[in-house]
Amino acid sequence: MRISRFFMPVLRDAPSEAEIVSHRLMLRAGMIRQSSSGIYSWLPMGLKVLNNISQIVREEQDKAGAVELLMPTIQSADLWRESERYEAYGAEMLRIKDRHGREMLYGPTNEELITTLFRDGAHSYRDVPCTLYHVQWKFRDEIRPRFGVMRGREFLMKDAYSFDLTKEDAKKSFNRMFVAYLRTFERLGLTAIPMQAETGPIGGDLSYEFIILAKTGESEVFCHKDLLDLKAPENVNYDSDLEPVMAPWLEKYAATEDVHDADRFASEVPRDKQISARGIEVGQVFLFGDKYNEPMKCAVQGPDGKLTTLQSGSYGIGVSRLVGAIIEASHDEAGIIWPQSIAPFKIGLLNLKVGDKDTDAACESLYEQLQSMGQTVLYDDSKERAGGKFKTMDLIGLPWQIIAGPRSVKAGKVELKNRASGEATELGLDEVINFFVTKSTDSPSTGTGRKSTES
Amino acid sequence: MRISRFFMPVLRDAPSEAEIVSHRLMLRAGMIRQSSSGIYSWLPMGLKVLNNISQIVREEQDKAGAVELLMPTIQSADLWRESERYEAYGAEMLRIKDRHGREMLYGPTNEELITTLFRDGAHSYRDVPCTLYHVQWKFRDEIRPRFGVMRGREFLMKDAYSFDLTKEDAKKSFNRMFVAYLRTFERLGLTAIPMQAETGPIGGDLSYEFIILAKTGESEVFCHKDLLDLKAPENVNYDSDLEPVMAPWLEKYAATEDVHDADRFASEVPRDKQISARGIEVGQVFLFGDKYNEPMKCAVQGPDGKLTTLQSGSYGIGVSRLVGAIIEASHDEAGIIWPQSIAPFKIGLLNLKVGDKDTDAACESLYEQLQSMGQTVLYDDSKERAGGKFKTMDLIGLPWQIIAGPRSVKAGKVELKNRASGEATELGLDEVINFFVTKSTDSPSTGTGRKSTES
Repeated sequence: MRISRFFMPVLRDAPSEAEIVSHRLMLRAGMIRQSSSGIYSWLPMGLKVLNNISQIVREEQDKAGAVELLMPTIQSADLWRESERYEAYGAEMLRIKDRHGREMLYGPTNEELITTLFRDGAHSYRDVPCTLYHVQWKFRDEIRPRFGVMRGREFLMKDAYSFDLTKEDAKKSFNRMFVAYLRTFERLGLTAIPMQAETGPIGGDLSYEFIILAKTGESEVFCHKDLLDLKAPENVNYDSDLEPVMAPWLEKYAATEDVHDADRFASEVPRDKQISARGIEVGQVFLFGDKYNEPMKCAVQGPDGKLTTLQSGSYGIGVSRLVGAIIEASHDEAGIIWPQSIAPFKIGLLNLKVGDKDTDAACESLYEQLQSMGQTVLYDDSKERAGGKFKTMDLIGLPWQIIAGPRSVKAGKVELKNRASGEATELGLDEVINFFVTKSTDSPSTGTGRKSTES
Repeated sequence: MRISRFFMPVLRDAPSEAEIVSHRLMLRAGMIRQSSSGIYSWLPMGLKVLNNISQIVREEQDKAGAVELLMPTIQSADLWRESERYEAYGAEMLRIKDRHGREMLYGPTNEELITTLFRDGAHSYRDVPCTLYHVQWKFRDEIRPRFGVMRGREFLMKDAYSFDLTKEDAKKSFNRMFVAYLRTFERLGLTAIPMQAETGPIGGDLSYEFIILAKTGESEVFCHKDLLDLKAPENVNYDSDLEPVMAPWLEKYAATEDVHDADRFASEVPRDKQISARGIEVGQVFLFGDKYNEPMKCAVQGPDGKLTTLQSGSYGIGVSRLVGAIIEASHDEAGIIWPQSIAPFKIGLLNLKVGDKDTDAACESLYEQLQSMGQTVLYDDSKERAGGKFKTMDLIGLPWQIIAGPRSVKAGKVELKNRASGEATELGLDEVINFFVTKSTDSPSTGTGRKSTES
């Protein structure tokens, strides 16, 4: 993409409305604009990141055997009366009357709707286990939206719902999602710790929140320090028993403040391993059995011929919130540092003297070659001065920068800079192409998990 | 995908609520379910088609130089007061009050919102031309939703908006979208004719609707018969003058009933070339100049240093409606016939005797091989009887069926059936793999444009 044909309105100064660094950087980098309180437009740069995150979330859902569908945003109030949540949900639910005066709502979650879909579509024990998910915009009418996309009102969420014949099978479906979440967050470059949590308005017996530690987190959390060093499992066989895979996370203490047990924490966790910090919730898993299936009569014929009420859980990932959370975890004073896996473009190509024939030719050639290799490149072909181009490129945080000025191009060279480490090397024009052929895809030094230096 | 792990609740009988064939087939094939009047859930099979259509729409938008972003579904009423459309829009607009009593609405279109985004982000003549688009759910509170996704209330639409410095440039942006639409619909296997149309609530001077002829169309249209035979241009250079490319469509009479001129029609079109038929609108393009930019003060500094109000157009494609429109144009009495370009899976693999060791082994082997070649395969590994499997596979309309029964497998063979033509051939197991290596991708005989035989 050429910047001259893109739409990326960067801001030099931090907007006063933004209280936290991710919100400031998303506004400055031209990723989002607020259109109403807690409601954002995703500008092209922001949308690319949002899509890249969604893609990883989907891939891991699919691997775990979940099947994607798409439920609408607007639901009928009557549906929520079946589960008795319509009155209970409170003012966060955006309630609507249509032109005929029928009561509708903008879905904050989808347990009721998926339950009717599965109830009407499944008839036999052969139709389970089944886990369905969608990635759809939700609305929660927060009384005080803040922190940009971290606590917005209209937000993108992946929510999955499992249906099983027995409690034991339901736990297996729960485990598959639990492990898929470990893998998802690791691929996003995040250390997200599953912590025991309250079940809240979703309900049920068992719930974990997946939490990223960050100063700007909305709640306090407590956990064993070793949990920060665990690595997500690879090559998971989702048909196997996953309890051993999950064990390292479940053996050590981790709890949100709502369910925190100070005595257990003190006795189970050595003092030098006790972490008490702020956390950002990026996902939550619930096992709630027949809470919705019983009142909504979601049942199938069992192998014994008897009608059997199904057992369920639900599993959410805050996709739009993750954009902010990842920036909170990966930035420096100059701007964002994108993990490769979700970077909007992998390479930023800076032409320091647009109009200079040799520099233009070198840049055009690099741009064409890199793109034909399947690399994503943002080519700064604008008339801005070099200083501004450097600042913009650091701000938007692409993993690699290729810097082409007239002097270096005359010597057949360009500069290759790693945004995360700041390391820069002079390379020949062919060398820089070769670098991206052979090295870059899985380079370990490209910007994930870097500590922030801005407070 | 194995059917045993999929969620595809097919119906043997046509639901009484469905008046037209596309609606009946989408319900029967387990593609959609209505959750409220005019509001649908997209089940896995339906979502795949919706995504495939969206993908083609996006590719052609990108080729034409449009840049994707994403605006939210919920907008502020105040925004629509700036353009004076809030009161004017009428009862089709879904109006909402949030918890603080602020007036909001579910966007039926996005001229106002994109105008503020561009106004705030663009400052110089160097920032134009710029065409931005998004693919987002919209809501129009139809008084009488009907025909399934063809006239739903919550619907998916691609809408693009162009910004230019002069009227001449705006016409060039308009032309790019016009040509992109010709290409988009052709790739979708449709003959969509651009017809002069009223501008309606969007406004402006120039508007064309892209219309598919179909008995179930919502309005009457009139055109020259030769327009049905035109082929969309290939390898378009979007930086060139597109007027000659568009000329074949514009030279011949084509108009919707709202702007139809019976005298002109009679004098310009020979009697044997006069078509008067029902039409389904699948896209519309508008050129409206400064209609929104003037009141909303969307202007940039021109090359002469003076503030210049921009010139704009907007360009919509009804993505969810297209699913129904394509089925209206491509089905037979047994079910849907998907064009290859948007088929949810390219191949249906039927195991006629699940549990028979040799048949299972042959099917598993084909399934693995075809998938590893990048083919999309729906494998019917269910316990259903052969007759039911045949019916389901014809109903859901995948372009190719591979039928494996114990007798043929014993002879090392399977049957390959083309859904569109009905032709079936016996092939060796290796031959069927080879067929998909060498032949299938661009085979001309695979289901696009087939005439329907169901009335």
